[in-house]
Amino acid sequence: MSQPRYLTGDKAGIQEFLDKFDVFLFDCDGVLWSGDHLFPNVAETIEMLRGQGKQLVFVTNNSTKSRADYKKKFDKMGIPCEVDEVFGSSYSAAVYIARILKLPAPKNKVYVLGESGIEQELASEGVQYVGGTDLALRRAIEPEDFAAIADGSSLDPDVGIVLSGLDFHVNYLKLATGFAYLQRGAIFLATNTDSTLPTAHSLFPGAGSVGAGLVKAFGKEPLALGKPSQAMMDAIEGKFHFDRSKTCMVGDRLNTDIQFGIEGKLGGTLAVLTGVNKKEDFLGEGKAVVPMAYIDTLGDLLG
Amino acid sequence: MSQPRYLTGDKAGIQEFLDKFDVFLFDCDGVLWSGDHLFPNVAETIEMLRGQGKQLVFVTNNSTKSRADYKKKFDKMGIPCEVDEVFGSSYSAAVYIARILKLPAPKNKVYVLGESGIEQELASEGVQYVGGTDLALRRAIEPEDFAAIADGSSLDPDVGIVLSGLDFHVNYLKLATGFAYLQRGAIFLATNTDSTLPTAHSLFPGAGSVGAGLVKAFGKEPLALGKPSQAMMDAIEGKFHFDRSKTCMVGDRLNTDIQFGIEGKLGGTLAVLTGVNKKEDFLGEGKAVVPMAYIDTLGDLLG
Repeated sequence: MSQPRYLTGDKAGIQEFLDKFDVFLFDCDGVLWSGDHLFPNVAETIEMLRGQGKQLVFVTNNSTKSRADYKKKFDKMGIPCEVDEVFGSSYSAAVYIARILKLPAPKNKVYVLGESGIEQELASEGVQYVGGTDLALRRAIEPEDFAAIADGSSLDPDVGIVLSGLDFHVNYLKLATGFAYLQRGAIFLATNTDSTLPTAHSLFPGAGSVGAGLVKAFGKEPLALGKPSQAMMDAIEGKFHFDRSKTCMVGDRLNTDIQFGIEGKLGGTLAVLTGVNKKEDFLGEGKAVVPMAYIDTLGDLLG
Repeated sequence: MSQPRYLTGDKAGIQEFLDKFDVFLFDCDGVLWSGDHLFPNVAETIEMLRGQGKQLVFVTNNSTKSRADYKKKFDKMGIPCEVDEVFGSSYSAAVYIARILKLPAPKNKVYVLGESGIEQELASEGVQYVGGTDLALRRAIEPEDFAAIADGSSLDPDVGIVLSGLDFHVNYLKLATGFAYLQRGAIFLATNTDSTLPTAHSLFPGAGSVGAGLVKAFGKEPLALGKPSQAMMDAIEGKFHFDRSKTCMVGDRLNTDIQFGIEGKLGGTLAVLTGVNKKEDFLGEGKAVVPMAYIDTLGDLLG
């Protein structure tokens, strides 16, 4: 396997690399910023790419935020960005449900295990949902709930999909309700299945861990709509209709971002060393996931 | 592999079988009763075994009830039983922690994901615990909780064990707290890892599904103290000091009860056909788990 090209400081190499692509898919955390810390020259790099006529898509597995929420983060960070350039796993799930899955009405409602970001994106694609932030489910399960779930009287007969994401208000009642829909034949989707959520300089349970109770009870994995699942690539393509051979994935994680680009048969992948993985993780013999090129920080693309 | 002996109606065969054993370990649900329905002649059968001088142990994976809670169920069902004859997965965990694991104080406290049955059993063995039914954790996670968990200020520095069981009040705050203890090196135990809880003529998330979020986030399975884990057999032996060759496991489920007895190298196993498995599941060639004998209903042991 050929070794990836190191682009930092290689002005000619950078332009040659950029010229290969019309579209850049960007991971955000670890590439543009880390938490609330913006990396140097990111805004200028983004402007430079726009100046060269590149289409940019910001791809994130964060399911709690809608695209509108996420744009606010870009605004706060001072990075120019349109809502339509943001592609989160919640929106990915909404696009997949509305444009690819297209279940016939009326049995096409979605039971949501997740926060308002998911609800907003489902609504933006005209998808009906129950659960989610419904306060009626934010309580302890009571003895009468078991019977009402078992006989279906507390269930919506039109639910045909269970969509599991990051829910900071997960509880037994929500898990039992989701499990009941799955046992009645609902399709099992997840915004993403990240096991952990990096925050406050530590790791917390991620969307995959919140939904793990449904997976264990039901005995089957959901189709995930976040990186590295190719269902997300299909959803991105379903919206942007890009030429994969002229598209490059930029990210810091080999097993999500770079693998996502390679499996999606994109023209290129660019690893940035400001996040999870270091160059030792992909340089040398026998490495599982190897990017086409790498760079110390995104701002190095300015040359 | 030899085929199991069918004991129903075989008076001589029954007595020959009973004479082999001094101790009988009984699964409860599916053997003695199904939910609130007592099977015929169960109380008389239990009395008959006692009359023959047999030691009886009632073994259950139900982690929400203490032995005292469980004895109330026996009383209600009219089955004579002593608290000391009940061995639930919560008690199993308490015995394992107190008599086998024996972590040195002070870092030997248990963080409980579960209900009061677990707390009662830990207390009965003199084990200190946090979490569990603590009302301070029965609420939504707040932004300041992330920092307090990350820097450890909301954690108990003496927690050395995380014990995961069936918690009807599970929430994100509890999962995040348990995950933090695991990341700090706590030993990961589970009362049991049953994926589902049969109730109200339906299936609900079981202890294994409640704890699945911890497993997914942490990336490692807990040591389970319920059937078919041999850690439970060790805990039973730790209390009763029985002769395994003179002990018989009686149960309705092949992959928990019967496997539990076979792996524990007990002298015998007896399948009862009033629960999950049917005789077709173990008769014939190439079956994975085969009991020594089987019987239609427990009451048939009266002959």
